[in-house]
Amino acid sequence: MAKKMGVGLVGYKFMGKSHSNAYRQVGHFFPDMPIIPEMTALCGRDEVNVKQAASDMGWKGYETDWKKLVTRKDIGLIDVSTPGDSHASIAIAAAGEGKHVFCEKPLANTLTEARAMAEAVKKNGVVGMVNFNYRRVPAVQLAKRLIQDGRIGKIYHWRAVYLQDWIMDPNFPLVWRLQKDIAGAGTLGDLGAHSIDLARMLVGEIAEVTGMTETFIKKRPLLAGTTGGLGAAASAEMGEVTVDDAALFMTRFANGAVGTFEATRFANGRRNYNSFEINGSKGSIVFNLERMNELQVLFNDDAADVQGFRTILVTEGVHPYMSAWWPAGHIIGWEHTFTHGVYDLMNGIDKGVSPEPTFEDGVRCQAVLDAIEKSASSKQWVNPEY
Amino acid sequence: MAKKMGVGLVGYKFMGKSHSNAYRQVGHFFPDMPIIPEMTALCGRDEVNVKQAASDMGWKGYETDWKKLVTRKDIGLIDVSTPGDSHASIAIAAAGEGKHVFCEKPLANTLTEARAMAEAVKKNGVVGMVNFNYRRVPAVQLAKRLIQDGRIGKIYHWRAVYLQDWIMDPNFPLVWRLQKDIAGAGTLGDLGAHSIDLARMLVGEIAEVTGMTETFIKKRPLLAGTTGGLGAAASAEMGEVTVDDAALFMTRFANGAVGTFEATRFANGRRNYNSFEINGSKGSIVFNLERMNELQVLFNDDAADVQGFRTILVTEGVHPYMSAWWPAGHIIGWEHTFTHGVYDLMNGIDKGVSPEPTFEDGVRCQAVLDAIEKSASSKQWVNPEY
Amino acid sequence: MAKKMGVGLVGYKFMGKSHSNAYRQVGHFFPDMPIIPEMTALCGRDEVNVKQAASDMGWKGYETDWKKLVTRKDIGLIDVSTPGDSHASIAIAAAGEGKHVFCEKPLANTLTEARAMAEAVKKNGVVGMVNFNYRRVPAVQLAKRLIQDGRIGKIYHWRAVYLQDWIMDPNFPLVWRLQKDIAGAGTLGDLGAHSIDLARMLVGEIAEVTGMTETFIKKRPLLAGTTGGLGAAASAEMGEVTVDDAALFMTRFANGAVGTFEATRFANGRRNYNSFEINGSKGSIVFNLERMNELQVLFNDDAADVQGFRTILVTEGVHPYMSAWWPAGHIIGWEHTFTHGVYDLMNGIDKGVSPEPTFEDGVRCQAVLDAIEKSASSKQWVNPEY
Amino acid sequence: MAKKMGVGLVGYKFMGKSHSNAYRQVGHFFPDMPIIPEMTALCGRDEVNVKQAASDMGWKGYETDWKKLVTRKDIGLIDVSTPGDSHASIAIAAAGEGKHVFCEKPLANTLTEARAMAEAVKKNGVVGMVNFNYRRVPAVQLAKRLIQDGRIGKIYHWRAVYLQDWIMDPNFPLVWRLQKDIAGAGTLGDLGAHSIDLARMLVGEIAEVTGMTETFIKKRPLLAGTTGGLGAAASAEMGEVTVDDAALFMTRFANGAVGTFEATRFANGRRNYNSFEINGSKGSIVFNLERMNELQVLFNDDAADVQGFRTILVTEGVHPYMSAWWPAGHIIGWEHTFTHGVYDLMNGIDKGVSPEPTFEDGVRCQAVLDAIEKSASSKQWVNPEY
Repeated sequence: MAKKMGVGLVGYKFMGKSHSNAYRQVGHFFPDMPIIPEMTALCGRDEVNVKQAASDMGWKGYETDWKKLVTRKDIGLIDVSTPGDSHASIAIAAAGEGKHVFCEKPLANTLTEARAMAEAVKKNGVVGMVNFNYRRVPAVQLAKRLIQDGRIGKIYHWRAVYLQDWIMDPNFPLVWRLQKDIAGAGTLGDLGAHSIDLARMLVGEIAEVTGMTETFIKKRPLLAGTTGGLGAAASAEMGEVTVDDAALFMTRFANGAVGTFEATRFANGRRNYNSFEINGSKGSIVFNLERMNELQVLFNDDAADVQGFRTILVTEGVHPYMSAWWPAGHIIGWEHTFTHGVYDLMNGIDKGVSPEPTFEDGVRCQAVLDAIEKSASSKQWVNPEY
Repeated sequence: MAKKMGVGLVGYKFMGKSHSNAYRQVGHFFPDMPIIPEMTALCGRDEVNVKQAASDMGWKGYETDWKKLVTRKDIGLIDVSTPGDSHASIAIAAAGEGKHVFCEKPLANTLTEARAMAEAVKKNGVVGMVNFNYRRVPAVQLAKRLIQDGRIGKIYHWRAVYLQDWIMDPNFPLVWRLQKDIAGAGTLGDLGAHSIDLARMLVGEIAEVTGMTETFIKKRPLLAGTTGGLGAAASAEMGEVTVDDAALFMTRFANGAVGTFEATRFANGRRNYNSFEINGSKGSIVFNLERMNELQVLFNDDAADVQGFRTILVTEGVHPYMSAWWPAGHIIGWEHTFTHGVYDLMNGIDKGVSPEPTFEDGVRCQAVLDAIEKSASSKQWVNPEY
Repeated sequence: MAKKMGVGLVGYKFMGKSHSNAYRQVGHFFPDMPIIPEMTALCGRDEVNVKQAASDMGWKGYETDWKKLVTRKDIGLIDVSTPGDSHASIAIAAAGEGKHVFCEKPLANTLTEARAMAEAVKKNGVVGMVNFNYRRVPAVQLAKRLIQDGRIGKIYHWRAVYLQDWIMDPNFPLVWRLQKDIAGAGTLGDLGAHSIDLARMLVGEIAEVTGMTETFIKKRPLLAGTTGGLGAAASAEMGEVTVDDAALFMTRFANGAVGTFEATRFANGRRNYNSFEINGSKGSIVFNLERMNELQVLFNDDAADVQGFRTILVTEGVHPYMSAWWPAGHIIGWEHTFTHGVYDLMNGIDKGVSPEPTFEDGVRCQAVLDAIEKSASSKQWVNPEY
Repeated sequence: MAKKMGVGLVGYKFMGKSHSNAYRQVGHFFPDMPIIPEMTALCGRDEVNVKQAASDMGWKGYETDWKKLVTRKDIGLIDVSTPGDSHASIAIAAAGEGKHVFCEKPLANTLTEARAMAEAVKKNGVVGMVNFNYRRVPAVQLAKRLIQDGRIGKIYHWRAVYLQDWIMDPNFPLVWRLQKDIAGAGTLGDLGAHSIDLARMLVGEIAEVTGMTETFIKKRPLLAGTTGGLGAAASAEMGEVTVDDAALFMTRFANGAVGTFEATRFANGRRNYNSFEINGSKGSIVFNLERMNELQVLFNDDAADVQGFRTILVTEGVHPYMSAWWPAGHIIGWEHTFTHGVYDLMNGIDKGVSPEPTFEDGVRCQAVLDAIEKSASSKQWVNPEY
């Protein structure tokens, strides 16, 4: 009989909705879970809203103060799905109370905070995991497996873009994601962080970076209220955009590979185009989140007359996570990257081992982000301070 | 405050799992639902298995006899997710008890049964809906809207294939889907029925058909037990395959359009390739279930130098059903065709109107299937007996 | 030192331009040719036009009467690139004069004519070849090789469409291709014939057909002069379209495979979409002329986790014909299907063997076309009269 | 009546073959040419080989010394298709003799040489054009037209990769393209130069660059003879690779756009993948040379429910250069980028105006290449010295 563990989730907008769904669903598809998450309490500052959200999303109760949430005895796991400016306080407090911590990405708004968070989970002996959810796309795990098994050979190139277009309209208002004091960074932390995390998982540690950032639209209408998530209404007054609209960087990896990265919210027509290509001595891999159930793979030992990129529909029982779902050819949706994350997290908690990406992974990603910002400012190559 | 209605689901394998998921999820994403389905009882003949399945999939209780299920006072909706040979008995009994009925496709194994079922829901004044779930892919609904709004013009061509490959291995055993007395038909009823239903929705009524069927592998190992769903283990003894492996047919529609259809389980590499193309006087539409979040559309009034098929990522808030889910560019999975179906069904029950595809739609699809079988046998063109 | 052979080409519009280009180019890319074609004379009825065309396209001289052309001593090969109504007279006369004959497809407007033509080349001991040029797309030859080598296994399915859209405008005038007495048939002979020829080459002989045809636009403006080729200007007077706008048919092959075919000029957005898919017991093949330098191939003995359609860029030196051209990745154009045809033809003439597709292949294609027309009229399955 | 002009072509391997083909073909497809190029003499150092090549490729005569070639009275245009180390001497000498000059790209091996060449054509009043042939892909010209007409809006992003894989095998020998003293640079000059030229044409002048280069395989077998072109045979002795295997760089354009570039010969499976994406305020454009007859375009003023990248088959009469070729849907090959170049060149000579890309364009591209090399060495951002 599976054990149960109470979960307290802080945040109920876009990420809160995604995490709630994962907790609700995971047990029905992964019946071998050693610990079942119980949806104990949802936490947010506005009581009316959080109460309604808790009811809509299947939570038993709610809290309006995270400081109270982290002390509740019926909760073993704190899920931090807030903007980056509150990650450190909540996560450190939770760890201090002996709670395991599942934290949205990037781990923090600064490298210093990230390090303190990693230290906190370590010191308190709790499990910590950062939700770089794209690690858990089955196609991405398949890519990892192919690389680990040597089927791609020595890696020469990493090439990643994460392209969106939702703020291209100059009248789109100044939401929190465009404010440095809340979001920490713009595309760099929001999108670039995902690409860095994937690069670290698939290629290896980044040794050196050079980067540039750009804010194309420098002033925007202030926000007139918010519906949460990405949508928003504009007011007549203008405010300054304090984060980057685009971040571009190049890297050298410790293993000799070279990489290019680009994150932007100004790529018209690219709704959520998180894509990477890896070129190795034995083959190549291409992934694109907008077709996340597919992986393109080339092997250069295929016969010369029939060599070409294979479009693999990653929906077979032999593919990572997929035996839990539907028959081959029946695709899964974006939300299940979270479901897979919760499944791995609960297994990690059961074993007392932080699943990847750990808080230490979060720190290393933050060190790269930090190095890129320094490079963008100094116009020099910078070594991340791991 | 939303009303609630108890649901009794018969069947707990592949379709049972899909339907259960829809009932669990629908309320969390469509908070405006007028009637919330309650997962009252799951029904199956093997008590050990059905009890376990009920627990895994979130049902409050279970039954081992559908005749008892359909009489329960706490149930207002009977969901028939069994093989085709029991659809008619269950659905007619349920309607006779005043229950609304949600029935898997095709509606029945014969046209006679289908008519009796349609008559039963009509006579008893209950809502009946057939689960041709591919109507509720958002991209398919978008196609429907474009056609209804006249943006494709007069339709000349319908071209559909539904290709799979899961029984190509001659050692794949004789599962129920390969036995006429249970399944009613092979690819024709399983896959072809979906294409016919989509054609009826998007193009119009089929006036005339000519068809052919083929069974490539005529004998297969008998089944040694089953794990349900599509997978299965083989025994040493052989039995006869009594359904078609492939069904091909051509049609004339009442409105003058012409159509081609092909359904097969012998298309290597095509896992679940349910695809159609529509050519009209103003444009064309292409859909493929393996990329179900996309729709290809061409408009011939686009400027000549930039005319081409558009690849539309059907994930915008303006797209059918999609405002319920995630931000643009975040795709949904196959299972939500069921979620959308339950949403529409509950709305239909609330209004006392059977949502499309109604049992009458199910009868008409069955009449086409019947005409194709007759044509395949007589080698003549046949008019469906509506 | 290569021998030389004078060529006389009848027709100087679209096909004449394509054939002329092939004769001009072939020697420069295939220096091993045993017989070099000399561009001796171009033939057409309008002296002013044919003289200009001869000059533009690189012909040494011209003729205005094909009956004279076929008797010229300095000509060894007659190329018949006229509409179908004159194929038989020219080809039979040329063969009677001991000339080799290269004839545009389909071989003739009737099966009787086609048989007489095949008889003529046989009786006179000359080489005859029909220009079903799509046989000589390198990707199509690669498909053929894969099938011959058994890499696709036993073939179950053939699925072909040839889709165009150039006459969808009801005001497009009544060009010769829309007149039965000149063109013989509409899409059936123009497009469907290509698909039939490819099916015969790749799958095998067609045993039985059922077909239907449709003319969506039954009257069109009469032609006000012509610029040749496909373009044309309309007059105010209307005339009757006497050929099909679309032809759909299904087949059983002698080897047990089943096939579907569709040819239409009413598929909006499909400019020249000549596509086929083959499903065999070991793999599948997909081709599309609009991306003619590519072939999609799936092998079901690829490892289960990396199985998927390969997109092969058919530009390698190991690919058919491609060592003559550019380095890998540098694509060739549509016109070189003709260049390859001339290359094979000159080799055939050198060896005294008619290259495929021979006039006998032309007859068999014609027999299938004939059977389809009979079926479309009788609404019965028909066996081609080989 | 068109004038004629004698051409002298230096170089007869891969580029020589491509240029020869263009001169042979151009007049047959562009009958409005004001000056017809005559294939007067081919020039190469090895008499046996150059004589054979001249014969194979349709040249009237040959020379073994370019110094003699440039003085011939019957020649008005010198075509420099040699490796980069001889571009400057030949071009400057030719200009000094009053000959027009068509020069392969990049213009020279150094910025100093390039400037001297531009000065030479200017001083002597002759036409000079650099053969960045990818400007003349019809799809690329269509992209240019869309941008010029404002249909893409203000450009924010340029994103280019030029990926190949032909030297990934460590045993591939040390051909001239891998030797700095002959080739000038590796991928940077060979592939990166193309991307820079396209960026300059489509986006604008590059203001600032930061770059890195890498040589993955540092020693290779010396060459045992050569068959020219890209293929080669290896000897047992090893030599040092003195050029880059990959070059990566980021740019700021003068107009505020930002760009990323990557050129490599180590991208397994990418045969000739010259691709770019442009994101502007009104739309986006994507091009890929391996599908050079297509252009992907998105317009953000398309209706929200049908917005998506259009796949435009750039084969219509309204598309740049395409009215010269075949009916819509009939694709052209890579070689015709050269045909189009010669057509524009002859028009430029007729008008006395150097067509783009002029030698001045060649200089500016060279200045960017130079800046990238400096940046790769200094690890600083560098401003090109225009």
